[in-house]
Amino acid sequence: MHTPRVGMVGGGQLARMSAAPAAALGINFRVLATEPDESAAQVVADVAIGRHDDADAVLGFAVGCDVVTFDHEHVPTAILEEVLARGIDVRPGPHALHFAQDKVAMRERLSAAGLPCPIWSVIATAEDVDAFVEQTGYPFIIKTSRGGYDGKGVWVVRDRAQAVELIASPLAPGAVWLAEELINFTQEISAQIARSPSGQSVAYPVVRTVQKDGICSEVIAPCPGLSDDRAMQAQAIALQIAAELDVVGMLAVEMFDTGTEFFINELAMRPHNSGHWSIDGANTSQFENHLRAVLDLPLGSPLMQAPYAVMVNILGGDVGDLYSAYRHIYARDPGLKVHLYGKEVKPGRKVGHVTAVGSDLEDLLTRAHHAADYFSGAIDE
Amino acid sequence: MHTPRVGMVGGGQLARMSAAPAAALGINFRVLATEPDESAAQVVADVAIGRHDDADAVLGFAVGCDVVTFDHEHVPTAILEEVLARGIDVRPGPHALHFAQDKVAMRERLSAAGLPCPIWSVIATAEDVDAFVEQTGYPFIIKTSRGGYDGKGVWVVRDRAQAVELIASPLAPGAVWLAEELINFTQEISAQIARSPSGQSVAYPVVRTVQKDGICSEVIAPCPGLSDDRAMQAQAIALQIAAELDVVGMLAVEMFDTGTEFFINELAMRPHNSGHWSIDGANTSQFENHLRAVLDLPLGSPLMQAPYAVMVNILGGDVGDLYSAYRHIYARDPGLKVHLYGKEVKPGRKVGHVTAVGSDLEDLLTRAHHAADYFSGAIDE
Repeated sequence: MHTPRVGMVGGGQLARMSAAPAAALGINFRVLATEPDESAAQVVADVAIGRHDDADAVLGFAVGCDVVTFDHEHVPTAILEEVLARGIDVRPGPHALHFAQDKVAMRERLSAAGLPCPIWSVIATAEDVDAFVEQTGYPFIIKTSRGGYDGKGVWVVRDRAQAVELIASPLAPGAVWLAEELINFTQEISAQIARSPSGQSVAYPVVRTVQKDGICSEVIAPCPGLSDDRAMQAQAIALQIAAELDVVGMLAVEMFDTGTEFFINELAMRPHNSGHWSIDGANTSQFENHLRAVLDLPLGSPLMQAPYAVMVNILGGDVGDLYSAYRHIYARDPGLKVHLYGKEVKPGRKVGHVTAVGSDLEDLLTRAHHAADYFSGAIDE
Repeated sequence: MHTPRVGMVGGGQLARMSAAPAAALGINFRVLATEPDESAAQVVADVAIGRHDDADAVLGFAVGCDVVTFDHEHVPTAILEEVLARGIDVRPGPHALHFAQDKVAMRERLSAAGLPCPIWSVIATAEDVDAFVEQTGYPFIIKTSRGGYDGKGVWVVRDRAQAVELIASPLAPGAVWLAEELINFTQEISAQIARSPSGQSVAYPVVRTVQKDGICSEVIAPCPGLSDDRAMQAQAIALQIAAELDVVGMLAVEMFDTGTEFFINELAMRPHNSGHWSIDGANTSQFENHLRAVLDLPLGSPLMQAPYAVMVNILGGDVGDLYSAYRHIYARDPGLKVHLYGKEVKPGRKVGHVTAVGSDLEDLLTRAHHAADYFSGAIDE
């Protein structure tokens, strides 16, 4: 048995944050980054440069890896089939990843399995809009079936004119328009699990996610006000999806919670923003368990190390220099954990996150938001 | 203000474990490693290759760094003075590092400051031995004043013949023989603090260290059976030493505890084996606080995240392949934290460590020793 090499396609912050557990595990870790100064490429020793949709780049990067995995869902499955054909494992496999890439395929498959989805339909014409609205009324949701992220490719449609105009606009190749019922939720939650090829799974505490302009802003672990029974129900949905789709690695299932029911919103088959709290707040971080899962190693405990963990994203503001904030942030709060991603600051861009772990939820929320607001320049004291 | 670059001289496991907090802080991190496949060089993006005692190598590596720090104490201070002369900060500075390099200088300085040392003397002749033994009797300790580590360069001398023969053997350049009283201790402890150039200091919980054949084998945080008063006394000794010697970064003060008194044994001005537990057991690891200290950032909380943390070193045994142990180790104990250093296994060599964090000390000790013994091949189930 030799020490394996895991290759991660994508050089963003998820690959960057995977580097620490890769080093602790003592495995070899390689990243395919688009640019030499990308987030993960700044900190990883073994970096290949190339695009995730360039077959030669992906295949060249994969040679010498024991398993290829992902920092995002956008690698064309045809390229992954070629990687597999050369005897290199791909985890999650293209047959699973397909359902994270194509939201229509995901809705079909989850609905067929009896899993709770909003009312949905593929739409192409004004007549399709009218037929759909008979079931849901306005407003409703229109999404592109492929290629969206962080709120991009998702619209709340308030009337017929808006809907008809939207679906007349150009679509990415292979994409269609997907209409979905607007769920009147009381909160959004994320249920994360890790699953290995052997079928072992562990479920993280279900968390509350708060979105702002389509971007995850705040995560509270565990989700406040969610009963144990309902939390286990959300975990069971995530475990069932992972088994149905044969997901390997981390799976995040984002759901709407109406207070009595859950509706599945999105799937992510990789470490996910809703699990960043686990670096500082769980026995085993999502990044470590993703690596352990794709290597088919027994999974680590997902249990929390304190009653609560709060994660708040740092969004770029009008301050280009994040480092200079440390003097204030750290002097004010010696217990706060800060993670910066080495990204150029642009307004609204995720450039880092802060985590506060402890037992007083209000205190953790105040501290984490203060730090994130100070980093972004929204406050100056 | 720009994002600074910290350069760490030495490519061992301390530099390797510093890479994770450097990435989280979003700073630039460069390592000077002797070989391209050294422990830290395997995982750090920015690596220079060269020896720590080669002035050109150290100076070339230092250009572009804002501050130079260390994974070991062995860089000649003359080279560090040259780095300083080029306007690059060196932390800890050569004036402080001198006392970690030269045990006679350390004894002189600490004794002058009234800090508790064993009886000691420089010895060169049989007459010196006889004069020293009048104060201490046999057995006593003989050390080389420079260059020893992990029990190398330290002897317990049981009679006059052994002492006289030993001090007739060759010494490294600049070294002398140091005789020290053998302290009849009940336990060994380590008091670690972090100190910034501004003078801010934080003290970690005092730990018990257990040595085996001169190598640190087990660390328990906090030290069992040590009263709060005595723990604070040990922390006060470490804080006083750091202030006296103007140490910047992490300082570990290893002490003998007789049950009523502490005697200073060794100093380390860098992250230290006795603080590895802090990665998984403290709010801020020693590696993060070392970086924050040398950057003169406010220091992080050194408080524990659970009542106890136990760290046990993995020593090389007759099993060359550490990775294959994971299947058993992780399946048996999903809560254990393993850190492997990417080093070739050699008998007795430190190749990793395991940490168990929780509230039941006996359970943590059993689990951590089981894993370390399994990795080394001492047990096979």
